[in-house]
Amino acid sequence: MILHDYLPSGNGYKIRLLLSLLGKSYQLKHYDIVKGESRSAEFLSINPNGKIPVLELDDGRYLAESNAALFYLAQNSAFWPEDSWQQAQVIKWLSFEQYSHEPNIASPRFWLSHAGMTPARQAQLADKQQQGYAALAVMEQHLKQQDYFVANRLTIADIALYAYTHVAEEGGFDLQQFPAVLSWLGRIAKQSNYVSIDDDSALIN
Amino acid sequence: MILHDYLPSGNGYKIRLLLSLLGKSYQLKHYDIVKGESRSAEFLSINPNGKIPVLELDDGRYLAESNAALFYLAQNSAFWPEDSWQQAQVIKWLSFEQYSHEPNIASPRFWLSHAGMTPARQAQLADKQQQGYAALAVMEQHLKQQDYFVANRLTIADIALYAYTHVAEEGGFDLQQFPAVLSWLGRIAKQSNYVSIDDDSALIN
Repeated sequence: MILHDYLPSGNGYKIRLLLSLLGKSYQLKHYDIVKGESRSAEFLSINPNGKIPVLELDDGRYLAESNAALFYLAQNSAFWPEDSWQQAQVIKWLSFEQYSHEPNIASPRFWLSHAGMTPARQAQLADKQQQGYAALAVMEQHLKQQDYFVANRLTIADIALYAYTHVAEEGGFDLQQFPAVLSWLGRIAKQSNYVSIDDDSALIN
Repeated sequence: MILHDYLPSGNGYKIRLLLSLLGKSYQLKHYDIVKGESRSAEFLSINPNGKIPVLELDDGRYLAESNAALFYLAQNSAFWPEDSWQQAQVIKWLSFEQYSHEPNIASPRFWLSHAGMTPARQAQLADKQQQGYAALAVMEQHLKQQDYFVANRLTIADIALYAYTHVAEEGGFDLQQFPAVLSWLGRIAKQSNYVSIDDDSALIN
């Protein structure tokens, strides 16, 4: 498999982390999204929405959207529960991640630590951070009662939420206010076959 | 089942439309989100994220996030494909809907037609509408080649995307630029057991 990706992306890292936990090998093809490399005609032919990551299967099929790739790769593994109510809980947290969490936690990090600040971004920063703290508070409340988000074990719900939470401080968030979240981050980082977000060992030209 | 909802919400309407297409009865409990009724202590006890819709099952379990409710209700029906690659395509479009479509198409509609405009909202409107048009263009490109988003038949991917697309003009979007999208909207509105977004026949006190 080839993962079309941008190394600092938490959305890409979700897939890299799951692939590593599953013990699956892949190649990482890098695009500098700050330079617009995910908007080229070539890239738009593999994802018309112009966003990394895109998972390319061995047979040449392409799958865009990080949480769709998590879903597909996790089938028939412990990271996707068998019970349909638990599956629905996983989808709930994947939706929460894409709607309430990622736009408010990933964007400040991207602006402050990667792409640079602009007046239009600065005007949105305080509101994004307020909503990002609200998302972290929802996670804290949930993780006070259980070690993982669904089914008392590590699933793709945790992997999806881990990706941008563990680097939230790069977006100006103080995680010390969320002790249950910090404990959960620690549990994930101790998994066997864990890889860090900047691991580029799968990188190809 | 009880759907905790706000009648103009496209996110709630997704679930109402699927329930109707499935021929399932339910009761609709209404919250005026403009008045903050989804932020009360009572509401937060059923969804700590403070957002409608929430599906309440007959046994008292609660499920937040509209696309999670679609996933759960569609199990073992024609609206959720059996093939895992097709399932991943559905999840891809549900993710696209929550990340690239809904925030850019639903928010302008909510501001212009329901909640009212504020200076902070006005400052974001042009950018939202630009990104909303980009999402509609991605849909148009896909629907030029096929009648439905996945598996050549109506699935929850279509239902999720239909909800806010069919009322996009309330957010200032001109759908006449997207003939394939308009044809697809028409195919969905012709389904047997179709209900409109303002159908309040399930409403309870």
